[in-house]
Amino acid sequence: MSYNTFGHLFRVTTWGESHGPALGATVDGCPPGIALEAGMIQQWLDKRKPGQSRHTTQRREPDEVEILSGVYEGRTTGTPIQLMIRNVDQRSKDYGNILDTFRPGHADITYFQKYGLRDPRGGGRSSARETAARVAAGGVARAALAALVPGVAITGYMVQMGPHRIDRARFDLAEVARNDFWVPDAQAAADWAKALDAIRKDGNSVGAMIEVVAQGVPAGIGAPIYAKLDTDLAAAMMSINAVKGVEIGAGMDAAALTGVENADEIEMGETGPRYRSNKAGGILGGISTGQDVVVRFAVKPTSSIHTPRASVLRDGTPTEVVTKGRHDPCVGIRAVPVAEAMMACVILDHLLMQRAQTGALGPVGIVGAQP
Amino acid sequence: MSYNTFGHLFRVTTWGESHGPALGATVDGCPPGIALEAGMIQQWLDKRKPGQSRHTTQRREPDEVEILSGVYEGRTTGTPIQLMIRNVDQRSKDYGNILDTFRPGHADITYFQKYGLRDPRGGGRSSARETAARVAAGGVARAALAALVPGVAITGYMVQMGPHRIDRARFDLAEVARNDFWVPDAQAAADWAKALDAIRKDGNSVGAMIEVVAQGVPAGIGAPIYAKLDTDLAAAMMSINAVKGVEIGAGMDAAALTGVENADEIEMGETGPRYRSNKAGGILGGISTGQDVVVRFAVKPTSSIHTPRASVLRDGTPTEVVTKGRHDPCVGIRAVPVAEAMMACVILDHLLMQRAQTGALGPVGIVGAQP
Amino acid sequence: MSYNTFGHLFRVTTWGESHGPALGATVDGCPPGIALEAGMIQQWLDKRKPGQSRHTTQRREPDEVEILSGVYEGRTTGTPIQLMIRNVDQRSKDYGNILDTFRPGHADITYFQKYGLRDPRGGGRSSARETAARVAAGGVARAALAALVPGVAITGYMVQMGPHRIDRARFDLAEVARNDFWVPDAQAAADWAKALDAIRKDGNSVGAMIEVVAQGVPAGIGAPIYAKLDTDLAAAMMSINAVKGVEIGAGMDAAALTGVENADEIEMGETGPRYRSNKAGGILGGISTGQDVVVRFAVKPTSSIHTPRASVLRDGTPTEVVTKGRHDPCVGIRAVPVAEAMMACVILDHLLMQRAQTGALGPVGIVGAQP
Amino acid sequence: MSYNTFGHLFRVTTWGESHGPALGATVDGCPPGIALEAGMIQQWLDKRKPGQSRHTTQRREPDEVEILSGVYEGRTTGTPIQLMIRNVDQRSKDYGNILDTFRPGHADITYFQKYGLRDPRGGGRSSARETAARVAAGGVARAALAALVPGVAITGYMVQMGPHRIDRARFDLAEVARNDFWVPDAQAAADWAKALDAIRKDGNSVGAMIEVVAQGVPAGIGAPIYAKLDTDLAAAMMSINAVKGVEIGAGMDAAALTGVENADEIEMGETGPRYRSNKAGGILGGISTGQDVVVRFAVKPTSSIHTPRASVLRDGTPTEVVTKGRHDPCVGIRAVPVAEAMMACVILDHLLMQRAQTGALGPVGIVGAQP
Repeated sequence: MSYNTFGHLFRVTTWGESHGPALGATVDGCPPGIALEAGMIQQWLDKRKPGQSRHTTQRREPDEVEILSGVYEGRTTGTPIQLMIRNVDQRSKDYGNILDTFRPGHADITYFQKYGLRDPRGGGRSSARETAARVAAGGVARAALAALVPGVAITGYMVQMGPHRIDRARFDLAEVARNDFWVPDAQAAADWAKALDAIRKDGNSVGAMIEVVAQGVPAGIGAPIYAKLDTDLAAAMMSINAVKGVEIGAGMDAAALTGVENADEIEMGETGPRYRSNKAGGILGGISTGQDVVVRFAVKPTSSIHTPRASVLRDGTPTEVVTKGRHDPCVGIRAVPVAEAMMACVILDHLLMQRAQTGALGPVGIVGAQP
Repeated sequence: MSYNTFGHLFRVTTWGESHGPALGATVDGCPPGIALEAGMIQQWLDKRKPGQSRHTTQRREPDEVEILSGVYEGRTTGTPIQLMIRNVDQRSKDYGNILDTFRPGHADITYFQKYGLRDPRGGGRSSARETAARVAAGGVARAALAALVPGVAITGYMVQMGPHRIDRARFDLAEVARNDFWVPDAQAAADWAKALDAIRKDGNSVGAMIEVVAQGVPAGIGAPIYAKLDTDLAAAMMSINAVKGVEIGAGMDAAALTGVENADEIEMGETGPRYRSNKAGGILGGISTGQDVVVRFAVKPTSSIHTPRASVLRDGTPTEVVTKGRHDPCVGIRAVPVAEAMMACVILDHLLMQRAQTGALGPVGIVGAQP
Repeated sequence: MSYNTFGHLFRVTTWGESHGPALGATVDGCPPGIALEAGMIQQWLDKRKPGQSRHTTQRREPDEVEILSGVYEGRTTGTPIQLMIRNVDQRSKDYGNILDTFRPGHADITYFQKYGLRDPRGGGRSSARETAARVAAGGVARAALAALVPGVAITGYMVQMGPHRIDRARFDLAEVARNDFWVPDAQAAADWAKALDAIRKDGNSVGAMIEVVAQGVPAGIGAPIYAKLDTDLAAAMMSINAVKGVEIGAGMDAAALTGVENADEIEMGETGPRYRSNKAGGILGGISTGQDVVVRFAVKPTSSIHTPRASVLRDGTPTEVVTKGRHDPCVGIRAVPVAEAMMACVILDHLLMQRAQTGALGPVGIVGAQP
Repeated sequence: MSYNTFGHLFRVTTWGESHGPALGATVDGCPPGIALEAGMIQQWLDKRKPGQSRHTTQRREPDEVEILSGVYEGRTTGTPIQLMIRNVDQRSKDYGNILDTFRPGHADITYFQKYGLRDPRGGGRSSARETAARVAAGGVARAALAALVPGVAITGYMVQMGPHRIDRARFDLAEVARNDFWVPDAQAAADWAKALDAIRKDGNSVGAMIEVVAQGVPAGIGAPIYAKLDTDLAAAMMSINAVKGVEIGAGMDAAALTGVENADEIEMGETGPRYRSNKAGGILGGISTGQDVVVRFAVKPTSSIHTPRASVLRDGTPTEVVTKGRHDPCVGIRAVPVAEAMMACVILDHLLMQRAQTGALGPVGIVGAQP
């Protein structure tokens, strides 16, 4: 089956293709009475939209969102919110040569195998343009979070591009908005610009690692077994195009740790338990601890490259594929606002689930309270 | 909310606590007419059950499964299959001292925060004993896979314990069943035994990395956006206790690759397209390619250790926690059969979804076929 | 929560308000390769659209559907299909006087109670305009049914308007398309036109009973317990605005029958088992028998009437409500194409579920076959 | 697919066959901290259990429930609650003669058609024994309702047996618990006993109509479109074995009403809006009004009768079926506690959904409040 919905209570269904008339998201389950207008969503779309620097695809899409339902006089009504974004700058002729061709590393071949046919225009449904719809939905989630749990702040940034990692000693969140790479390290931004220019001129592309942090998430949200907070975050990030791995807190490095190293020691802070470290990435047993929720994921390099790669045509004939057209040399850059949006949706969803079961938007059991 | 179900069409709901009378899995959506008897499930439970070597917890549980419904005269009837495992060797007194204590790195504190109360006996629902139910459900999935797509073979094994990695040059799948670590490298098995003895004597524990491979999975299963094959696998593995990261194919290393390196080139093989490499881990655009599906995940070290760690009591009083009782010094070892079970359930689920939408248990579009 | 989705595998999510810019349906899970163009959907919308006779609301809506995604070169691609209908003839001023007023018998008061605010323009989300989206989705379901199980024919018609019932002796399906009431009895059509004129002139409205029959549904679809075919049909019909009761086959009259009367006796026909009667309405144990699937439901009279009724304002002040504006004097008339659409969606959904579990779009066990 | 789960947030999955070792319900999503012990569930099972009068099947089942998980020291923990009931009095030999026979009016034939095989012992999964699991789950729902919204009272009773209806003039809820028919009319109880004796001696059976009323349900629960409160109630009741029709409030009779008659006029009462009638059955636009929620449904007569009926064998051979064994001559009687249980589950589920979206276990918009 084709499942295009995520979320348990705050449910987002995206629709649309890269070169169809429009794409969008149907957002169901939003709390009523939340202040919402198009501009509150547009600000996040503007972060993701293409063509803002030489480091992303030169396709020019205004990515202007229309709210078609679910909002009345600037407030959500509790009914489904339809967010539509018209496609404007489709140049389908750029893609004509790949109609019967399968780009190595791309979903061309698997879509054909799965469905027996596919929309080849710009990658159809498999295009990263789908992520605009997620960012729009994330804008709704952020508006609801701001109303329900004002302290939540969600920030994504790149920590690696190809072999180049940020220097954590230079880490400065304020830098993120100042460069084309959403990178919290001014020196890295400068270095990466040169490195990416070289990659692009070489007809190549490069992978990336993104980190997303949610601050101010109350303790106690999540679920104990299959819809754990980390499980849903892993699925949310892995569902973004080109993502090949997801980790929480210490992540893959946890394999190398001992129990003594891994145990985040606990002490009492002024407002509740406080941890001396955050190997857990803010999640224990699928449930938030109240620390920063820290997720990291790897984005593979764009498979649409100008360097010839061996492939086959639909009828099996061997061929060499060189992808023309406008593509991101590092698709990871634009994954940053997408990941923030997914984080916002998941956090909101779990807050609503906790409220359903317990009545609280946070912890029910208060550590340090008199019993 | 508390979500204890996974799967879209082949749905597994687990229930039960570490020291309650029993635990189990309700399996709904299994195809009818599948040959199934308790022994077919028991063989997998026997792989996971505790107390089989000095490297796992000394709790003695027979983990004997009873099929309470959904099977008639050795065949599934299409109705829900209830699999129950009685708990036998509960020693609740071992856990008495942690009633009001929160072990650092453990779900004790978050369960209390979420629900306001918790079952402290052996970790209650957060105990890795829950995974016995998954292994049982995986046995049903394996039986169905064997009937529907006979070529599928699922194998899990450890590739790292603490800082010790296997030597891929010595990789031999036949070794996996011959040692206590499910490791495909005889030399590693010998070395790790010594290393783990030291860890255990030191009152410490250690993390691990597990790899699971599904061979023979047909191309074309998966979904394009939110319930991608890799998304569901990521969630499935992340839902296992203590897992902190999941990756597919090249995984986190994909961040460092270029597009040229990452693109698995395609050529025609005798029965369809064949790939010169498998950076994709058998999945492109959320859909299987027909290559081996390769998943890797990190398991953090057991948080129940004999070394004192700073923590707080429920009322906020500072304390030091030393966990007595019987615990796995490397809980990753017993995660191997669990991961295999999760893989089996996910693959079967996606096969049924593909059959629902297209009528096929594999690809609909045949590369190389005459149009 | 606000649940605006129905269906298990063929899933329809509707969105939109009566006087917003647009409304529509997101259809997920449609099989790929199905021939589909807007005209195939438009034909059904044209049956439902208002203003076609003096017996329905005089609001003039072209109800023109746009397919925004999921179709390429006239075939479904397996990805979500977005169907949008622009609202054109909104006269919101007609509704100004009910901003703080609750019409007795209407959802005005409960929407306010549930959400704390509501879109009062034309009833907002509670308007029967939402059913246009269902009819559009039903058009997709019909196209898929035509491709997968060509023999299925779905027909709805009125069998009662207020106290006036059709005469089953004059039953003629061919009449249904020839009159403004979708009634299979020419005499009734003439009589009802006069009766409804009188009701309308009287500032009143009237209820109705609709019957929907699905012919050619294969035996074996449905589910044994909670998502039975009859359960899902009951929910589907009850979800239509103003419906207060649903029955299958003998329905509520089954309470008065004996077991001897109720048992549809079985004999062998040329292509399988044949039944001497159809008290079951084509469903036994939640699963189709291969007979006609027969559903009946009651639609209450429109609550927006010109006759004053006692009510309260939002602040509690007593008032009398007289609804101005354009309303259907018998909203049941336009429920006929809506019910057909819901039947089509449910039947398709269950066919896909049967295919998922068994591989067949019909029975697996063949009565009369040599074992 | 085989869907054996109902509920959105309070989710019940039942499992088990009539003559298997056990049956039960997995209850997920229950709020934590609810007082619960087996006796609180047993009281409801005792109402449903067979063999309590000569008017129900003589099968002797203690229907003793065991709580296997999700409860610790008399309180729910928020994790899944497994409720198991052992089957004790299976006499499979009674059913031997129907192995290849299809009882007219029974699910024998459709289960075989759907799955290609079936468990013939006592009807397998299609037996009304499955409803014991629902009653157990309903006991959990009642305990949670008592804790969350103490004023809710749910009462079911028969209002018709065959052609015999109660006299509403003699309606007395106190009578319900005093007779074998759960009928609120002492005279009817006496008359029906004689009528049913005659039916039973005649080797026949008879249908019934049940009404269930939920008092004290707060206004504002439900959902506007597909998971309306009435939609979910219709599905819940239709999912009970042998039910052929469901109605809310005026129900099927609404078809005959005018808008003037149907509009329940509103006035202010002491604690909020009050209605002069309840044609709506407590639900407008899918959302509760605060009035009594009134549901009615028809149960067809038992199809297992001692009178011969024409049928076919599995191989198509004509036959006459006479069902031996112990069956309820009026299965509607034991549907009463089942319907109460379903009502309790649905009401609780919708309360939790309202709490998720709005934070309230009732109305958010208060009619009569100062704005």
